[in-house]
Amino acid sequence: MIKYPNGQPSNFHKKERKTSVARSISSANRGMDFETDINLSCEYYKEKGLALITKRPTPINVVKVDYSKGAMITHAYFEKQSTTDYNGVYKGKYLDFEAKETKSKTSFPLNNIAPQQVEHLLGVIRHGGIAFFLIRLISLGETYLLKADYICGFYNEKPRKSIPVSEIKEHGILVKKGYNPRYLFLEAVDEAFFR
Amino acid sequence: MIKYPNGQPSNFHKKERKTSVARSISSANRGMDFETDINLSCEYYKEKGLALITKRPTPINVVKVDYSKGAMITHAYFEKQSTTDYNGVYKGKYLDFEAKETKSKTSFPLNNIAPQQVEHLLGVIRHGGIAFFLIRLISLGETYLLKADYICGFYNEKPRKSIPVSEIKEHGILVKKGYNPRYLFLEAVDEAFFR
Repeated sequence: MIKYPNGQPSNFHKKERKTSVARSISSANRGMDFETDINLSCEYYKEKGLALITKRPTPINVVKVDYSKGAMITHAYFEKQSTTDYNGVYKGKYLDFEAKETKSKTSFPLNNIAPQQVEHLLGVIRHGGIAFFLIRLISLGETYLLKADYICGFYNEKPRKSIPVSEIKEHGILVKKGYNPRYLFLEAVDEAFFR
Repeated sequence: MIKYPNGQPSNFHKKERKTSVARSISSANRGMDFETDINLSCEYYKEKGLALITKRPTPINVVKVDYSKGAMITHAYFEKQSTTDYNGVYKGKYLDFEAKETKSKTSFPLNNIAPQQVEHLLGVIRHGGIAFFLIRLISLGETYLLKADYICGFYNEKPRKSIPVSEIKEHGILVKKGYNPRYLFLEAVDEAFFR
């Protein structure tokens, strides 16, 4: 049985559409865990008045609603997210990022990133906003912030298909893990963009 | 027959949940028209490289997906939007707004605005972002930009229930209408926040 997320639809369709119905529950949960932790970290930063960052809902095309059952949607489809998952305001600046992860011990596969995400983040940079990726290296238990211009440069450079872990460590900023917030990514943002 | 929006789910549930199933098609279309025009205006500004502003998808809680029919959602519910509908980046600043309209010839009813929208916009202001409302006065055929701190001030001031049109005209900036973009709201943003 596939576990249906409760109130966490955003990462749901991306993982499910890419793999077969028999995708393991543990894999789905792992992706959900990272996203959940980032959401909780954003919530912490909001409560502390440090930043206002939210996760963008998954776009869904609603075809039919059954009003006899209290506006229950009975027919709809997931749509492709045209932007990234997270954005908000920090120190007056527009902030935009995508959270990705990989099980690979040696590199981060670039096919994790959709073309519209690259286009969006490059647009954010052009307009003077802060754009980055949070890349979680599952097997190493480490998460890095990498500036979007760096990642997008790799993405556009054919025939590169992945970014070696060694380069992630060299060019990225290690994001500390904690209890609350789970990921202290604002500290990494400060180091990358405000110094 | 209720017209189901195609790819425009965001305003759909708000209008439908508030009124009976027999809501007139013309009213539903009018709300959709304003939103559609704002979306088109954002698209124009993006194409011209002037601003990167998008409409936030309606949050939907997915309960069941039928994979035998290509990931068709068969059971889901609309959720309350925890923020506003539009945000993005303009001249390096975070920009956030809500588009509202009223048929009233004399005032803008404050019950059009949800408490979480007020809370969110005040948070945007605290963090140094640009926050405002675009208020369309349908009967007058005019649209005004009003700064969020002004509107939220009214909202929190009990027992005020609405903002008189005279005050909207006095404190707001008239948003020009055009063909492309449909609403030249960035000009009003410049006047309100960059001069």
